[in-house]
Amino acid sequence: MIRFECDYAEGAHPRILEALLKTNREQTSGYGEDIFCETAKKIIGLACGNSDMDVHFLVGGTQANITVISSILRPHQAVISADKGHIAEHETGAIEATGHKVIALPTEDGKITAKQVRQVVMEHFTDASQEHMPQPAMVYISHPTETGLLYTKQELTELSTVCRERKIPLYLDGARLGYGLAAPKNDVFMADLAKLCDVFYIGGTKVGAMFGEAVCIVNDKYKEDFRYHIKQRGGLLSKGRFLGIQFDTLFRDGLYLEISKTAVEQALRIKEAFKNGGCDFLYDSYTNQQFPILNRVVYSELSKLYSFSTWKKLEGERFAVRFVTSWATREENVDTLISDIKRLCKIYGDRPTNYEEAETEEN
Amino acid sequence: MIRFECDYAEGAHPRILEALLKTNREQTSGYGEDIFCETAKKIIGLACGNSDMDVHFLVGGTQANITVISSILRPHQAVISADKGHIAEHETGAIEATGHKVIALPTEDGKITAKQVRQVVMEHFTDASQEHMPQPAMVYISHPTETGLLYTKQELTELSTVCRERKIPLYLDGARLGYGLAAPKNDVFMADLAKLCDVFYIGGTKVGAMFGEAVCIVNDKYKEDFRYHIKQRGGLLSKGRFLGIQFDTLFRDGLYLEISKTAVEQALRIKEAFKNGGCDFLYDSYTNQQFPILNRVVYSELSKLYSFSTWKKLEGERFAVRFVTSWATREENVDTLISDIKRLCKIYGDRPTNYEEAETEEN
Amino acid sequence: MIRFECDYAEGAHPRILEALLKTNREQTSGYGEDIFCETAKKIIGLACGNSDMDVHFLVGGTQANITVISSILRPHQAVISADKGHIAEHETGAIEATGHKVIALPTEDGKITAKQVRQVVMEHFTDASQEHMPQPAMVYISHPTETGLLYTKQELTELSTVCRERKIPLYLDGARLGYGLAAPKNDVFMADLAKLCDVFYIGGTKVGAMFGEAVCIVNDKYKEDFRYHIKQRGGLLSKGRFLGIQFDTLFRDGLYLEISKTAVEQALRIKEAFKNGGCDFLYDSYTNQQFPILNRVVYSELSKLYSFSTWKKLEGERFAVRFVTSWATREENVDTLISDIKRLCKIYGDRPTNYEEAETEEN
Amino acid sequence: MIRFECDYAEGAHPRILEALLKTNREQTSGYGEDIFCETAKKIIGLACGNSDMDVHFLVGGTQANITVISSILRPHQAVISADKGHIAEHETGAIEATGHKVIALPTEDGKITAKQVRQVVMEHFTDASQEHMPQPAMVYISHPTETGLLYTKQELTELSTVCRERKIPLYLDGARLGYGLAAPKNDVFMADLAKLCDVFYIGGTKVGAMFGEAVCIVNDKYKEDFRYHIKQRGGLLSKGRFLGIQFDTLFRDGLYLEISKTAVEQALRIKEAFKNGGCDFLYDSYTNQQFPILNRVVYSELSKLYSFSTWKKLEGERFAVRFVTSWATREENVDTLISDIKRLCKIYGDRPTNYEEAETEEN
Repeated sequence: MIRFECDYAEGAHPRILEALLKTNREQTSGYGEDIFCETAKKIIGLACGNSDMDVHFLVGGTQANITVISSILRPHQAVISADKGHIAEHETGAIEATGHKVIALPTEDGKITAKQVRQVVMEHFTDASQEHMPQPAMVYISHPTETGLLYTKQELTELSTVCRERKIPLYLDGARLGYGLAAPKNDVFMADLAKLCDVFYIGGTKVGAMFGEAVCIVNDKYKEDFRYHIKQRGGLLSKGRFLGIQFDTLFRDGLYLEISKTAVEQALRIKEAFKNGGCDFLYDSYTNQQFPILNRVVYSELSKLYSFSTWKKLEGERFAVRFVTSWATREENVDTLISDIKRLCKIYGDRPTNYEEAETEEN
Repeated sequence: MIRFECDYAEGAHPRILEALLKTNREQTSGYGEDIFCETAKKIIGLACGNSDMDVHFLVGGTQANITVISSILRPHQAVISADKGHIAEHETGAIEATGHKVIALPTEDGKITAKQVRQVVMEHFTDASQEHMPQPAMVYISHPTETGLLYTKQELTELSTVCRERKIPLYLDGARLGYGLAAPKNDVFMADLAKLCDVFYIGGTKVGAMFGEAVCIVNDKYKEDFRYHIKQRGGLLSKGRFLGIQFDTLFRDGLYLEISKTAVEQALRIKEAFKNGGCDFLYDSYTNQQFPILNRVVYSELSKLYSFSTWKKLEGERFAVRFVTSWATREENVDTLISDIKRLCKIYGDRPTNYEEAETEEN
Repeated sequence: MIRFECDYAEGAHPRILEALLKTNREQTSGYGEDIFCETAKKIIGLACGNSDMDVHFLVGGTQANITVISSILRPHQAVISADKGHIAEHETGAIEATGHKVIALPTEDGKITAKQVRQVVMEHFTDASQEHMPQPAMVYISHPTETGLLYTKQELTELSTVCRERKIPLYLDGARLGYGLAAPKNDVFMADLAKLCDVFYIGGTKVGAMFGEAVCIVNDKYKEDFRYHIKQRGGLLSKGRFLGIQFDTLFRDGLYLEISKTAVEQALRIKEAFKNGGCDFLYDSYTNQQFPILNRVVYSELSKLYSFSTWKKLEGERFAVRFVTSWATREENVDTLISDIKRLCKIYGDRPTNYEEAETEEN
Repeated sequence: MIRFECDYAEGAHPRILEALLKTNREQTSGYGEDIFCETAKKIIGLACGNSDMDVHFLVGGTQANITVISSILRPHQAVISADKGHIAEHETGAIEATGHKVIALPTEDGKITAKQVRQVVMEHFTDASQEHMPQPAMVYISHPTETGLLYTKQELTELSTVCRERKIPLYLDGARLGYGLAAPKNDVFMADLAKLCDVFYIGGTKVGAMFGEAVCIVNDKYKEDFRYHIKQRGGLLSKGRFLGIQFDTLFRDGLYLEISKTAVEQALRIKEAFKNGGCDFLYDSYTNQQFPILNRVVYSELSKLYSFSTWKKLEGERFAVRFVTSWATREENVDTLISDIKRLCKIYGDRPTNYEEAETEEN
């Protein structure tokens, strides 16, 4: 069975393995204080056009979110997130476990707006009993979102503006950042993040690395003592060099963007196939996650051949599902998938424009 | 400069890298629910003579400690540790950050006794104001200890007995377990741990892996919902297969013990050299950590040639230091070190029994 | 200005002050281990028809909620509450500060149903990625609710049943319990709570006491070590006798119910007045909180004469407000209020059926 | 049996009860936003010669410690305390429950020195692996200490100086402050606290109040949002007026000092009696707690007549015990106690200089 269920089904990009092999017997200090990490930090600084920001490498995304958020908030403060945000839904209450409420803003598509943030903050600070409620003191977004969508530069700028007005940090979770940067409709670049966010992280795990996320702290205010927090939350890798080597590899010669682009191309081919098959989409994504809506038969038939996620059960026995590509997705597997989509939609699809042709093909 | 400062200065054992390469493009489920993890768990179960225990793979030691301890204790409960225990001294208050006090028992050498545990627990429960103090409800030990020492089977059995009498779990941190198992004086085997402890972990990071610790939950009482805790504490690796592959490799064909043995042999050669040079030791270790006491000149001269840790400044300008070997330590580097120890101790040592000979050799 | 903004605007019931005076110079042990607390616990046990339950006295409601909830949940577990529940909205994230997510169920009126609970729990445990989400492991309700409403015995029994089926505790916050017990439509008695809940608390602060809430632990499973939790959360009053004396007084000779009844009667008079004045209500309450909806003029005029809470701004410049009575509410103040309501509604009300009459009366 | 076991065995000072009675039916806002609290804050500001500091009223001492400490520290930071400090020993790990380690400095007598603080802080910040250890970031002392001792103005100034040098706050727990201020050897006044500390609290519970501690925040840096923390930790009393009324009463006409003085006088009479009886003392206290050392017979005989605390079992079957007086201690009870001490020490004391006389008296 071919897997399209996530972007971490395979190992690491071959160049990363190569780099690990090549450096394996060199001796370095532990805990990320080595030449590989140092170099990788510089390269990331260059890629972001900001050599002043602090870069720290952590192993995983939940760990990065826990460490960043808990290092910034005071106990009575809460972080604002989309209701579909990863910290709101899929981290087993990890943020709450550090003592903080996640204020989940209702969204249709997983994107929050500057207007929503402004309103929540204003409502809080104009309430006479404000101290009876957690204080909204940070904004968390992901780019792309959990729903595969992107913030435009305009939207991101507005979010940044309201955050600066209200003196609360903007934190961007870039677990799938590569796939956002490589999307045809994206107009947000890494240098923009290093200008508009206070903290953000560049995802490695889902974009070619064995593991690893690069936390970039732009705002000086949040730089102090960050390594204590990494250690306390269990995120300080003994053999930290492995993180440096991987990010060094990913950010040399444009590898990060190059492999992201391939993944997005394959995702868009899949999208096209579902579209041509007459499918609607839960979210109109141009990144590596695609959310077609399938009827029961197509859903069931595809399930026999591929692994993918069931995102949401809809009325009328329809299923919003998620197909995910990654840097490792093989073109031939996508070819097979597309041909199956074509075939199944023609026979069992909701709008089989050419039923006879389908019939014929089947024979 | 040759490094003897820690057991994580190099990469991973070549067989591990080989296994990673070989399996790199296979597709698996994420989060440790893959065939590699499944197999590795079985092999570890076999190695421990206990196929009923639950095995979970985590990335690092602090993470393992946080996750295990906080999953077991109720809020008012505390964990007992040696004052020199890793959780007591070197995890940035990670246990406290999950809400629990670490009750640090005073020790000379980092080892606690059943008698101490019994006394602390008894004193607590016979105190009329017991509810004004955190309740001692878990015992944490490491084997080998931070001081390179080992519990005998007798000592471990006594600790286990008092814990069972008092109905509190015994948790053993085996970050350097391999180097304990391979020590000439050790009489504690993995099957003993699986009988005497409620939970223990087998260290991978320091014993050949890139990263990884295998948490073994023996007592049924502590098995429930453990994966929730791993996720909440940020320890659920997306590409969990990498943990399975590594532990599978380490526990096949006795690799884990084999490479541990090499490391210990080199450590004992170093110990011998310091001993012959007239040095005393802070702790009498038979594992991969050695703690010779150096005078100022020898200390200073060795510092120019090797990196090692300064453990404790003693009276009379003497320094207790730590030399650590690992699976990756090269015999030729140890040869060089030994020859330097010999030379320096003869010239500058506190008890240069044969000064002329030293002189001659120098010429 | 006469206050109807809350049920804690005055001091304590005279009989309580009398009892405090009378016993003031007696010497007792501290921390609630005195004869007054002992007696009060017995009386409460009798009142609840359950002498086996544990009773503990705490100073305030948020403290009671923190202590009970955090003593029961394991770190990965969450508590289910109505979105309008006190713990969800008005405790500054106190539950999250102890590490737990509050799962807020959407409600129109602040009451949750057994069906909702069953669904949340079932959805969780049938999700393949359940460990990526906090585990629903407790149900919190208040009776009366924040919206002044009551659960029927039938509803409470259903909630209790689903909780027992799913082996999760049902916890009832009775901050205003007296005003619920005294409501004309109530069919839930204290003995029912002691049968259907695992833990509940009887509110004193809002029902005649200076301060104090009596936490009743019915289920043996949650009794162990509760005093440690009280102490740890800062709730163990040194002069604990003051809590015993107050609850002893409240539960002797039916005082608790008697004073609650008076408060509810006054509240219903106010309700009647608003109803007669043509007002709608946000919630149809029969307890001591009333939520009439006022137009801008009536709202503004009443604000000049009385203090009350603005609950919600509605469309069309209308305001849902809250008037609260208590054991201390003076009948003459309610008389004045009613006459003002009558007058203002007639002149400025939305449905002034008899405008002339109003005019005349003004003159 | 007469109680000398603690300073909270009786109720409240009569003037406080009187004030409560007098104001009982007045209506005020809740949560400490009333005229009584406002006035009390002003009076305390005057008493401390600092009208700029923020004053907040909390119910109890553990609550005050939790709220102050957790509002100031970031997650990776720890608070320094004497090993005998209340937060280190007798608050059930309440500080750890908010995520912070208590660094317990070893002391003979419960007092820490500026030198100790300087060393701990310096050692931390000169350690290359500092981020592997919690960062010492606050100093907690109590005055008087748990051992009944006082800091001199000189000692307090030195502690303040080192704290300011290292930019860490000095927090003083004044649970028994009155009894310190009233001690014959004391040279620290409230105005000194308001100059030398960043935060301190003035104890009410043990000095005449029913309950209540006044937290004084001197340093502007720690004032922001403090009421959120009070609410979150469960310390915001609904009927906050009761705290205002009590502190208003205590700080009018010098009542606080006056009643403290009486208690100390009685304590010193008891001290004198034990001294004359030939007893040694565990700590040489001039405050309301006295720590005589008794042999087994005297200990046993006194236990039959009085309740007091057994502080520490010493070698040779001797017992260090604690006798405590308070504002409520009756002179006649002290007379009786003194006469019993005299009698018992003469007969059974370790140094009965005049055995015959004792005999005679017995007859």
